[in-house]
Amino acid sequence: MYGAVIYAPGDVRVDERDKPTIVESTDAIIRMSATCVCGSDLWDYRGINPVAQPIPMGHEYVGIVEEVGSEVTTIAPGQFVIGSFFASDNTCEICQAGYHSSCIHRQFVGAGGAQAEYLRVPLADGTLVATPEVPSDDLIPSLLAASDVLGTGWFGAVAADAGPGKTVAVVGDGAVGLLAILAARQLGAECIIPMSRHESRQRLAREFGATDIVTERGDAGVARIKELTGGLGADSVIEAVGTQESMMQAIGSTRPGGHVGYVGVAHDVALPGEELFYSHVHLHGGPAPVRRFLPELIDLIWQRKINPGKVFDLELPLAEAAEGYKAMDERRAIKTLLRP
Amino acid sequence: MYGAVIYAPGDVRVDERDKPTIVESTDAIIRMSATCVCGSDLWDYRGINPVAQPIPMGHEYVGIVEEVGSEVTTIAPGQFVIGSFFASDNTCEICQAGYHSSCIHRQFVGAGGAQAEYLRVPLADGTLVATPEVPSDDLIPSLLAASDVLGTGWFGAVAADAGPGKTVAVVGDGAVGLLAILAARQLGAECIIPMSRHESRQRLAREFGATDIVTERGDAGVARIKELTGGLGADSVIEAVGTQESMMQAIGSTRPGGHVGYVGVAHDVALPGEELFYSHVHLHGGPAPVRRFLPELIDLIWQRKINPGKVFDLELPLAEAAEGYKAMDERRAIKTLLRP
Repeated sequence: MYGAVIYAPGDVRVDERDKPTIVESTDAIIRMSATCVCGSDLWDYRGINPVAQPIPMGHEYVGIVEEVGSEVTTIAPGQFVIGSFFASDNTCEICQAGYHSSCIHRQFVGAGGAQAEYLRVPLADGTLVATPEVPSDDLIPSLLAASDVLGTGWFGAVAADAGPGKTVAVVGDGAVGLLAILAARQLGAECIIPMSRHESRQRLAREFGATDIVTERGDAGVARIKELTGGLGADSVIEAVGTQESMMQAIGSTRPGGHVGYVGVAHDVALPGEELFYSHVHLHGGPAPVRRFLPELIDLIWQRKINPGKVFDLELPLAEAAEGYKAMDERRAIKTLLRP
Repeated sequence: MYGAVIYAPGDVRVDERDKPTIVESTDAIIRMSATCVCGSDLWDYRGINPVAQPIPMGHEYVGIVEEVGSEVTTIAPGQFVIGSFFASDNTCEICQAGYHSSCIHRQFVGAGGAQAEYLRVPLADGTLVATPEVPSDDLIPSLLAASDVLGTGWFGAVAADAGPGKTVAVVGDGAVGLLAILAARQLGAECIIPMSRHESRQRLAREFGATDIVTERGDAGVARIKELTGGLGADSVIEAVGTQESMMQAIGSTRPGGHVGYVGVAHDVALPGEELFYSHVHLHGGPAPVRRFLPELIDLIWQRKINPGKVFDLELPLAEAAEGYKAMDERRAIKTLLRP
């Protein structure tokens, strides 16, 4: 089969690789209907994460179950399934509390590289959620979004306590930030204020439910959010970048007693204790427990109540994965969908 | 009148100073029944906070109202009152949300120095809570504790989401940590595990509701808490120290999805973003909004359901404040009560 492999920063190739096979009796093999490039893949592509040896890429996936291990009971060949980047047993105490991405048996599904024709998914019963039937083609981008970016934006909004009557600010206008807007809207937020300076993203932000847009960043961005919130700051702020600047912008934009939900993978971040202490914010986040939200998200998509697939503004054959990375790196595309 | 003033690290004197007067029409002047030395006062005493000029000390107080400004309507001379270290209007949006210590009109009551015979309290109507009548003398230590350490420990327990069925760990065995145990117990926690290596404090910890004691610190302390919680970590961890080590010990001891409530005033703390991200904890804390809890705490004390005054294991006349500081600095006393 073919799959994308990164060899060095800026160097992604689609190689012929071994088709994955059942290793554990709880595994499933799925034939990919669609996969995509994640903002976090760009950390490797840009050389911010080291690339010591060739690494199979991708951790977002939807597809048809081809084969299951002998212990798999709820997932069957022929089903269309969606799973998250972390495999989880869905039964341990941590999963039961809703933190599947910290499951005591968690495994990184992306280890095998989801930007490929086939993928091995461990703990299939706990990890995969099947759709009511094989979806029509137009639903596939939205279902694929549920695999990571939608689930991650949703977790950001939940962690930030977005809800009825709340004013929600969003730091980061990538696919996760944009879908956090959609999530906040679905959760009933009253005002949703993304911080964005890119016109095409602002357009999508408004479509997803943004009520205002702040184009300033850093301290100026914080000042603008305070101006829009009676000097107090937003009730809820979703952080979807993962840098020192974005975290401080999020904390600074939140009113005392408010909530910061952070889902940008932290890179070289050190939070100053004293500033955090006096900010009085609630801080919660981390790798999104997407599995917690999948049934609800799939249902919303299936009923066509939400259309998160709109974040894919570039669709390419898997063979052209390299161009998909390049377009995102150069910010010509928000998010690239790849079809094997 | 007389009041304690710090001149340099280790140098606290009781000086003759001007008696405070009404400055704003919303002020009250109270005649101190009792005051005390706070763990945070030791940051100055130990030279960790700079002491650039003589500073009047103390921010914990109970006493009899002597005089009120012309706009004060709910507090009257002759009442016995308790307030917090931050004056608050109790009406702004932030106070209404329960974050009085970030009130938009907040003022630091300790600016005048509460280790004195009289104290000016700004925003008297919003800040002070009167007891049903002038209390008997034996209730005074507990009511004084409500002014800060009890309210702070209580906020730590609330911020850590301590409640029925929960396992709660406590980092720090000073007065705040000990009263966080009492709070967790009152809030219904099932297991309460302080981390303490001082026998006298362990005794008080057990009396307040501790079910286990962990004597290890740092990574060894984290390992022991995990051992006691099925390898997962505590549901709730209260941090009552404020150092890098204590914060990391608290975060490390908390299970994914669990809550850290931190109330130790942060000193030279920088939280590593990546570790925090993958810890999956909820983090909340800051200067305790003691005013939020005062009516409930006073009621519990008045009904003699709790006895937080037990943290005062040294009582001295105000004139001997210097010895009160010294005893706490040398850990001969947990907390010193001073009687003017």
